[in-house]
This record gives sequence, C-alpha cells and structure tokens, in this order.
Amino acid sequence: MQRHIDVELAGLTDELVQMATLAETAIGLSIKALVSRDAELARQVIASDAQINTLEIEIDERCLRTMALYQPEARDLRFLAMALKINNDLERMGDQAVNIAERTLDLLKEPLLKPLIDIPRMAALAQRMVKDSLDSFIRQDVELARSVCRRDDEVDRYDDQLFRELLTYMMQDSKAITRAVNLILVSRHLERIADHATNIAEDVVYLVQGRTIKHHAAGE
Amino acid sequence: MQRHIDVELAGLTDELVQMATLAETAIGLSIKALVSRDAELARQVIASDAQINTLEIEIDERCLRTMALYQPEARDLRFLAMALKINNDLERMGDQAVNIAERTLDLLKEPLLKPLIDIPRMAALAQRMVKDSLDSFIRQDVELARSVCRRDDEVDRYDDQLFRELLTYMMQDSKAITRAVNLILVSRHLERIADHATNIAEDVVYLVQGRTIKHHAAGE
Repeated sequence: MQRHIDVELAGLTDELVQMATLAETAIGLSIKALVSRDAELARQVIASDAQINTLEIEIDERCLRTMALYQPEARDLRFLAMALKINNDLERMGDQAVNIAERTLDLLKEPLLKPLIDIPRMAALAQRMVKDSLDSFIRQDVELARSVCRRDDEVDRYDDQLFRELLTYMMQDSKAITRAVNLILVSRHLERIADHATNIAEDVVYLVQGRTIKHHAAGE
Repeated sequence: MQRHIDVELAGLTDELVQMATLAETAIGLSIKALVSRDAELARQVIASDAQINTLEIEIDERCLRTMALYQPEARDLRFLAMALKINNDLERMGDQAVNIAERTLDLLKEPLLKPLIDIPRMAALAQRMVKDSLDSFIRQDVELARSVCRRDDEVDRYDDQLFRELLTYMMQDSKAITRAVNLILVSRHLERIADHATNIAEDVVYLVQGRTIKHHAAGE
C-alpha cells in the first residue's frame, strides 16, 4: 500500500531532477557561450538563474512541509534532510554557471587567447558528475556515487594543469594577463561544480549506507 | 516547563557556536600566516580542518537524531533544518581557510609582492560577518542578520578592487604574475566566506520571519 508521504517524496524527487537539469543546462550553456563567443547566450545563462533560485525555495519549503505534516520516521527523515542539502548544492552550481557566464562576457572584450580544449573537456566531466550524482540519488546507487567521488580528482588535475599552463601564457605576454586570469577563474568555477557533485554523491552513500564517507571519500 | 527537545536544541546551538568559532579561528590564522609569512602556521590551519570536518558530521547526526526521536513540530523542525544548512556553510568556510593557507604556502616561495593592506581588512570584515551571522542565529536577531547581508556588498567591492589592482601589477612586471594570481585567489576565497555568512544570515531571517529573503536580500 502506498503511503501518503511517498507521494510527497516522489514529487520532491521530481523537483530535484528538474533542479539538476536546470543546473546542468546552465553549466553547458555557459561553456557553450564561452567557446562560441556568444555574449547573448552568456546573458541568458545569467538571467535564467532566477528560475533555479525560485525552485530552490520551493523545494526547501516542500521538505519542511513534508517533515511537519507527516512526522516521518528515521529513513524518510534522512531522505528529506539530504534533499535539503542536495538542493543547496544544486543551487550553488547554478551560481557557478553564472560566474562562468560573467567571466565569458569579460573574455569577449578581447580576441581568443588560445583554442579552448581542456576547459570544454573539464566542463563535460563536471556536467557528467552532476548528472550521475543525481542519478545515484534517485536510484540509491552507491557504486555510481562512489565513481562520482573518484572523478573529482580528475577535475582537480585539469584545474592544476590549466593553472600552470595559463601562468606560462601570462609570463610570456603581458597582453594575455586579463584573459588568462579569467580562464583560471572559469577553471576554478568548474572545479567547484565538481565539488558540489561530489558532496551530493557523498550524501547518497551516507543516505544508503547510513554512514558517512565525507572528507575521506576518495581514500576508500 | 522545559521540554526534552529544548535540551537537545541547546546542545546543538552550542555545537554550532563551537563550529563557528573553529571556522572563524581558521580564517583569522590563515590570514595571519599570510601577513606574517608563517609557513608553520599555514600548515596548522590545513591540519586543523580535520576537527571542523569531524564536528560537521557530529552536528548533522545530532540534527537527524533529534528529528527522529522527538518528532518536532513546525518551528523546531525549521530550526533543525536551518541548523543542517548553517553547519554546511560553516564547514565550507573552513575549506576556504584551508585554500587560503595553501595559497599562502605558494606565496611564501617568493618575496612579498606588496604590503598587504586590503586583504587583512577584507578578512576582518569577513570574520566579523561570520561571527555576526551566528550571533544573529543564536539571538534570533533579524536586524543583525540583515546587516550581515548588506555587508556582503562591501566585501564584493574589495574583491573587485583587488582584482583590478593586481592585474595592473602583473601587466607591469611579469615576475609578479604568480604572486598576483595567488593573491587574487585569496581575495576570492574571502569573498566566498562572506557569501557563506550571508547565506546563514538569510536563513536566520527566514527562520525568524518564516519567509525567505534569499536571492534578493540586499534589495529590501
């Protein structure tokens, strides 16, 4: 027999999927705007953040309402508490996409510094981590969640490598400085997105296994 | 008559204060290490993050346990849900302090680029925001919370100003590049800390007034 609370939890899951899709789309479009040098698209990403912010508030309210109405027991409560956290991580990913779009608008003031190869790769990795972290939540798939945690190291390596490469560009040509700094910041924003996906994945392992892998995820 | 749950909520508040104190201390010491060029102190900040991480997990567990045991009603539930969020923000401030300490270790490989004046000021502002955001939570002081939200703009202005100033340094002298980029990143980390304090303050207004000022805080 289906319980009333299950209907609420299913609705909440749908909203989180919608939130993740919005965040993933914003990340993808912010990088597309960067690569195709499309200021209009960058502005769209910035404008569309309002939708993510509105949905975040709705999801928070729904979590609290469900907690208050149904007085859920341990497992459902844990699910609701994790939904609150995941919601927060998704909203911050949206913020990072806005930051990338803002850096893009600044980068468009000058010609392309160098062909962008690593940044789109890094973005593809980060986007996949966002998708997989939420899929792992929906399917309660611990293995998938663990694989998201492991991929975080790969994104960090890209970030380090780009940082060093862009420093070299700046040293060689002072006219490259503003653009290189902006690209370093884009890389940092992608690294933060991957961190948020990793937080979600850690929460999934916690939710399913009832214990935390936080702060030593990759070590296991 | 005191309810059992009040004992739990008071204990939780104490732990959050402890968490905020650890985060505030880590921020202060990371900047002290930067200004006094003290590598040993920077390493201490990095090592002490483990304590913050452990406390974060304890607080999360306590929130969930309290929710499950006492089946709290609307107002207490809201308090517990906000405690989960605040806990998360405080832990991420600790991470930002670690990032500053890491940048410091990199900066210590070269002589001082310029006297550090704005960064310590910005750090003092951010630290104060952390303290006030938690005080506003404890005292349920909406006015104090709103003042934290307003101060976020001041930190953003410092960040913008430092960014432009450090770009100029790099343009003038390519030997300054690595150090200037590291200082730009330190400034960004401080700006993130102020953002987390602002998130907490927004949650306090929400908790007290039962409505959200999120995403349009400063505009009110």
